[in-house]
Amino acid sequence: MVSINDLPLREELRGESAYGAPQLHVAYQLNTNENPYPPSQALIDDLVNEVRELAPQLNRYPERDAVELREALAEYVSRQTGVVVSREQVWAANGSNEVLQQLLQAFGGPGRSVLGFTPSYSMHPILAAGTQTRFIECPRGADFRIDIEAALSAVARHEPNIVFITTPNNPTGDVTPLEDVEKLVQAAPGIVIVDEAYAEFSPSPSATTLLEKYPTKLVVSRTMSKAFDFAGGRLGYFVADPAFVEAVMLVRLPYHLSVLSQAAARVALRHSEDTLATVAKLAAERDRVVAKLNKIGFEVVPSESNFVFFGKFKDQHSAWEAFLDNEVLIRDVGVTGYLRATIGLPQENDAFLNAAEKLAATVLVKP
Amino acid sequence: MVSINDLPLREELRGESAYGAPQLHVAYQLNTNENPYPPSQALIDDLVNEVRELAPQLNRYPERDAVELREALAEYVSRQTGVVVSREQVWAANGSNEVLQQLLQAFGGPGRSVLGFTPSYSMHPILAAGTQTRFIECPRGADFRIDIEAALSAVARHEPNIVFITTPNNPTGDVTPLEDVEKLVQAAPGIVIVDEAYAEFSPSPSATTLLEKYPTKLVVSRTMSKAFDFAGGRLGYFVADPAFVEAVMLVRLPYHLSVLSQAAARVALRHSEDTLATVAKLAAERDRVVAKLNKIGFEVVPSESNFVFFGKFKDQHSAWEAFLDNEVLIRDVGVTGYLRATIGLPQENDAFLNAAEKLAATVLVKP
Repeated sequence: MVSINDLPLREELRGESAYGAPQLHVAYQLNTNENPYPPSQALIDDLVNEVRELAPQLNRYPERDAVELREALAEYVSRQTGVVVSREQVWAANGSNEVLQQLLQAFGGPGRSVLGFTPSYSMHPILAAGTQTRFIECPRGADFRIDIEAALSAVARHEPNIVFITTPNNPTGDVTPLEDVEKLVQAAPGIVIVDEAYAEFSPSPSATTLLEKYPTKLVVSRTMSKAFDFAGGRLGYFVADPAFVEAVMLVRLPYHLSVLSQAAARVALRHSEDTLATVAKLAAERDRVVAKLNKIGFEVVPSESNFVFFGKFKDQHSAWEAFLDNEVLIRDVGVTGYLRATIGLPQENDAFLNAAEKLAATVLVKP
Repeated sequence: MVSINDLPLREELRGESAYGAPQLHVAYQLNTNENPYPPSQALIDDLVNEVRELAPQLNRYPERDAVELREALAEYVSRQTGVVVSREQVWAANGSNEVLQQLLQAFGGPGRSVLGFTPSYSMHPILAAGTQTRFIECPRGADFRIDIEAALSAVARHEPNIVFITTPNNPTGDVTPLEDVEKLVQAAPGIVIVDEAYAEFSPSPSATTLLEKYPTKLVVSRTMSKAFDFAGGRLGYFVADPAFVEAVMLVRLPYHLSVLSQAAARVALRHSEDTLATVAKLAAERDRVVAKLNKIGFEVVPSESNFVFFGKFKDQHSAWEAFLDNEVLIRDVGVTGYLRATIGLPQENDAFLNAAEKLAATVLVKP
């Protein structure tokens, strides 16, 4: 019987464990920030037709640079953010994880560093490690927001090659004001990647509005996994100056996006109005959940996304288990005293709130 | 107007150009080693039904570890190679490029090296560069085969962490005998990755037959792009001890394989008997093409794959252009005096042979 320790693995990987939220089968799964609304029947029919049409060419490599899809993404971003962008400014890959990995390969790597404001998307340090980029943590303030003075001073002190700003932030849900994003872009000696995975859930302006002013410094990454109802399709993208697209093409794996991935994303974009109608429903549900959690006695970080970050728990991991015992799977991201719950369908949110109400007396620091 | 030179790109990427064969639209495309036979109607119908069934869950993340697909791949490999393997021994990703990148991240990287026998698959050095692994070239012999004595001595001298053996080799088509593979595995201080992308086209035994004997050293990588008629589906995999699967799970991007990629590959595997029936046709066509090329006066490397490597051209790049002028797109891989042509449908091969016959007098060193 061979063990992983018998393999000549890189030293820094020894003893590590694989990333990933538990994929458990319970009644209420509110742990991965998916959009709970299934795609519309019109979208499904359209996708089925597209697959029927394209399948006879599956023996051929896909269009390598996904030009049609990038055109459709550019149209969508122009409409959604009000900033007109062209397909030359858009790059797509298998989920925003791959997009970010490509950016780190091109602009990070050995001898370079990336700074992030923690807690934030837990894949950022993992992607940094995977590309041998040193990850520098700058803790957020006590309210989980970026403390702009501390942030600027960390950028000045560490001179990171890359700065990550996640807004709305995961797992906390809060938005970094555009003027603070701009201050950080101005201060950064290298590039700034604004991770807008949850942008559609927020009424705040997108950082794409700053692209024209900072073409050599700013990249805005986005995903179809969340608002777009397309986590299973795995499609992430970024918007930036065309020079950034040229740069990632030097490190991308050729033919990285399959014929089906490109086609399914194009279909999903054609139905974006239907799909994004669910965003308003989820925002309303989020506000209902926050109000109720506050009423029960929880502290909730102000959220402009499709999840809530709440506490304060005596021991967040046993509280996570207590929710699970009630058939509600939420997320322990490792922040002392807090847990994250995705906004689901109304009945799922009811189940979550019922569990929260039932558990409050035993799990909260101050019930 | 911003240029890529205005960006803080990694120094070693400056001046590089993006990998990729030209995607030109000409009558006969014999440049990327695709299987020219389209998927069967039964496969297409099955895929369409599967997509219809799965599309309503596209808002959910895919099964992260692709367990069902790996089970299907294990069954296929067991049947095709005669070596019984389990799903714990199989790992899948978006094309064998991603599989190899993950292996390089886990076992290569900064301060480590990988040795390859050149000319070989041109992505190997690019994947090494992308993961900061030093690439060491050991040239093949004058007949383009691995000179085993020279190979063993290069392994002893350089002590590479990883050795790539491509068999059948791309672009030359020749097979490295299993006893030579075993000698290299014994000699290698680290791991050996046998790249069997074209295995189905060869009657020679697979290196999977050595897995049981060398569980901590050997990985066999494969793809569904070639024999399997599935270049557009982007599905590569490896077979090795389960410890190697554990290892790549430390570096893989979570949810790297979309719902549709997993489903389409499972469907293609269900129809493997139909699909692989095309392999025999292609092998027969290959033998016809080789015989005719020899008759015309070309030298052809003995091929056990779906392409031929032939020469000897006075100037292979102008010969490549001359073929293109005749509407036949083949591949100049940068080896002086030689070009690579994929075996296509009979009429495509006829067009290629007609062009070859027409051009021989002007392009060959000794017409």
